Amino acid sequence: MRVMGIDPGLRNMGWGIIDVAGPRISHVANGICRSASSDDLATRLLSLFDQLTEIVKTYAPDCAAVEQTFVNKDAVATLKLGQARSVALLVPARAGLPIGEYAPNAVKKTVVGVGHAAKQQVEHMIKLQLPGARLEGPDAVDALAIAITHSYHAQSASRLQDAIRKAAS
Amino acid sequence: MRVMGIDPGLRNMGWGIIDVAGPRISHVANGICRSASSDDLATRLLSLFDQLTEIVKTYAPDCAAVEQTFVNKDAVATLKLGQARSVALLVPARAGLPIGEYAPNAVKKTVVGVGHAAKQQVEHMIKLQLPGARLEGPDAVDALAIAITHSYHAQSASRLQDAIRKAAS
Repeated sequence: MRVMGIDPGLRNMGWGIIDVAGPRISHVANGICRSASSDDLATRLLSLFDQLTEIVKTYAPDCAAVEQTFVNKDAVATLKLGQARSVALLVPARAGLPIGEYAPNAVKKTVVGVGHAAKQQVEHMIKLQLPGARLEGPDAVDALAIAITHSYHAQSASRLQDAIRKAAS
Repeated sequence: MRVMGIDPGLRNMGWGIIDVAGPRISHVANGICRSASSDDLATRLLSLFDQLTEIVKTYAPDCAAVEQTFVNKDAVATLKLGQARSVALLVPARAGLPIGEYAPNAVKKTVVGVGHAAKQQVEHMIKLQLPGARLEGPDAVDALAIAITHSYHAQSASRLQDAIRKAAS
């Protein structure tokens, strides 16, 4: 199973792709889609949309996972993030991929073991789990962490279904 | 010139299309794209995206105008609106249309004459200016009002450019 993680942002949209085979995960690619703050909003959203669409075409993931958005006190920032997040959901949805959504704390808890881990701890664990991967920046690290979180949750869900099926048969 | 107005919303996305020929405007079509609140967010955004894309294909507008979003105290509502608005900007941008953005008060001021007009006043003026148009609901009325606002502003801008050109020649 190939999983694409996306960390939504209007200026920097992180993405990371991993392959999952049973308990083994391996790095495929990671990077950051960027939009220029000098461009108008529609142009920026379209640029992110086109970049992400190209990545989905290139790497053909089987599913996607997107970070849930912090609703914070800065309403303007919340609005911007919402607009970027819309692109992060639309592109995999258009490709027909199932999409998981995870809160930032759930991602940290899965990858590091605690919900309030520092950025550096997350990066450290990603480097341990995906040795040799060249990380393109903090947003790409977060995107890989989201992809790993999805692979764990998807596997637990599938093991649970297997157990239920066995118990029922 | 054919203008498409869009009033963004996640549940109800209003749209309205008018033809503008000098000082004369005429109604082409209006309606509401809907998404079911029982669906997950990605499915809803994709559904709105597909519906709007179909409308742009069918009516082939020359430009689009989108209402600017109120940033209000309800952060969750702001986030939802931002996600819907992203679709309202992306679809015309993908079709290569220039996009105008107008604050709700600017729309009311253009259509009714005052920035704090009631919904009914806006509807009344739309009925006067687009006689015979069957209005599909409040969000469609707002979308037509946005289209009319854009046609006025685009014409003023073009008259100003003409005057500057004449003065310079």
